[in-house]
Amino acid sequence: MKNLYILGVGLIGGSFALDIKKSNSDITVYGVDSNQDHLEEAKQLGVIDRTATFNDLNQADVVIVSIPVDATVNQISEILDVVEDHTLVIDVGSTKEDICLKVENHKKRRNFLAAHPIAGTEFSGPKAAINDLYQGKTMIICEVEKTAFKLQEKALKIFSDLGMRIRYMNPKAHDKHIAYVSHLSHISSFMLGKTVIEKEKNERDIFDMAGSGFESTVRLAKSSPEMWTPIFRQNKTNVIETLDEYIKNLNTFKEYMINNDFESVFNQMKETNHIKDILNGIA
Amino acid sequence: MKNLYILGVGLIGGSFALDIKKSNSDITVYGVDSNQDHLEEAKQLGVIDRTATFNDLNQADVVIVSIPVDATVNQISEILDVVEDHTLVIDVGSTKEDICLKVENHKKRRNFLAAHPIAGTEFSGPKAAINDLYQGKTMIICEVEKTAFKLQEKALKIFSDLGMRIRYMNPKAHDKHIAYVSHLSHISSFMLGKTVIEKEKNERDIFDMAGSGFESTVRLAKSSPEMWTPIFRQNKTNVIETLDEYIKNLNTFKEYMINNDFESVFNQMKETNHIKDILNGIA
Repeated sequence: MKNLYILGVGLIGGSFALDIKKSNSDITVYGVDSNQDHLEEAKQLGVIDRTATFNDLNQADVVIVSIPVDATVNQISEILDVVEDHTLVIDVGSTKEDICLKVENHKKRRNFLAAHPIAGTEFSGPKAAINDLYQGKTMIICEVEKTAFKLQEKALKIFSDLGMRIRYMNPKAHDKHIAYVSHLSHISSFMLGKTVIEKEKNERDIFDMAGSGFESTVRLAKSSPEMWTPIFRQNKTNVIETLDEYIKNLNTFKEYMINNDFESVFNQMKETNHIKDILNGIA
Repeated sequence: MKNLYILGVGLIGGSFALDIKKSNSDITVYGVDSNQDHLEEAKQLGVIDRTATFNDLNQADVVIVSIPVDATVNQISEILDVVEDHTLVIDVGSTKEDICLKVENHKKRRNFLAAHPIAGTEFSGPKAAINDLYQGKTMIICEVEKTAFKLQEKALKIFSDLGMRIRYMNPKAHDKHIAYVSHLSHISSFMLGKTVIEKEKNERDIFDMAGSGFESTVRLAKSSPEMWTPIFRQNKTNVIETLDEYIKNLNTFKEYMINNDFESVFNQMKETNHIKDILNGIA
């Protein structure tokens, strides 16, 4: 690999750029972004070596597509049309079903790898790119058998150099599970933030009374709406299902309280404490 | 102050013990706890100097009451009955209305201070006690004018030595606001954990797919049901109100999604992003 192209130089793409460059000092990292300010910023911050345009993608050995998931679905055919036969195109978006369907019959399907790094922060843009974001994190790969074997190897080498663990899933299962463990968390956090902001017209009160617990539960409400709206749209059916179940559980908890059934309130919390053991495995 | 008594040697009381001892090396810290194992553990860990019993409270210069809020309401009259005229009794529970009502007409009302430190972690028991938990945190004090002036001074000296900021509120306002910024966060987190656990029968999947975002939003679901059930019971009316509003907001968000109104989905998130500025003040 000589030329790495990062399409979308924000938190996810920028962090890939930094870490891949670190373990491959001889490569040149090119950034492509529809936001010219981000592109210049990424260059100034040293996240990328050079700026480039969409039409330069034919120079790429590897392309990492890290743009909003609706843009990825819209542009992936054209990206695959532009790249050379030896080029590996990795999509790293948070939804996998639509993108896999979209490329299914593309003549360069075997140049494409559908992946999802379980890593991130609540920040966005080139400034959010950080070193070692992917170290020890999981990379989910979908439909690996549809990628050319040599390009699979190339991708696995990159991910393994970053210190990632690999898990293989089908796109449908990915989108269903990820709705629970990621997408729902974002909505619960955004709506918690909204509920509190609406109530506490005097922000000083939130400020003084909120502790680290509140901070932790609303952290994701800082996330980028530009990234998340397309994710919710693409994963609509699964996300609505998770929301239904979450709201049902909240209503049940409320009913227990209304009926003074604090034994059930206690039991629900006690059973959920078990999340400790599960989280211990996340680290 | 020579003799500090900590009633309830868990996360909150134990952390007070550690820090007050640090800035007053000449005092003796006594622990009292209905859980004998916790008491011994606290002593072994050096959280307290000596174990004691309820009846020893007449030896106390200062008593910190850090037991579940229902136990505090049940025991506070007896505690005040036992202590000497010069003794300061500080309640540090998460609800303030019921306890203030309970002591209202006690003949030692002026020995009592109702307080709530906005600090904690998701852990509990003596092992959870840590140094500097209160450094830079807010201490909310209710009905300060009902505490004897000299004892107010004594309390403020203790809190200021710990590096705490003081805010005065009435108990009703405290319970209403805290329902939003603390109690609701815990329920949203517990129910999120429950929703995911129910769905993901295969825990390995949660494990591998959940990232730091999920971890952050469900962190509070590790909290102690023994502590939180009485809090929800005491603050029932306010908590149900916050739950109603939270569920309403979640339903609205879901409706937007069902109706493909992703502009509203975007706008709701964009407006809530403002939580960044508020959280910057918490730190």
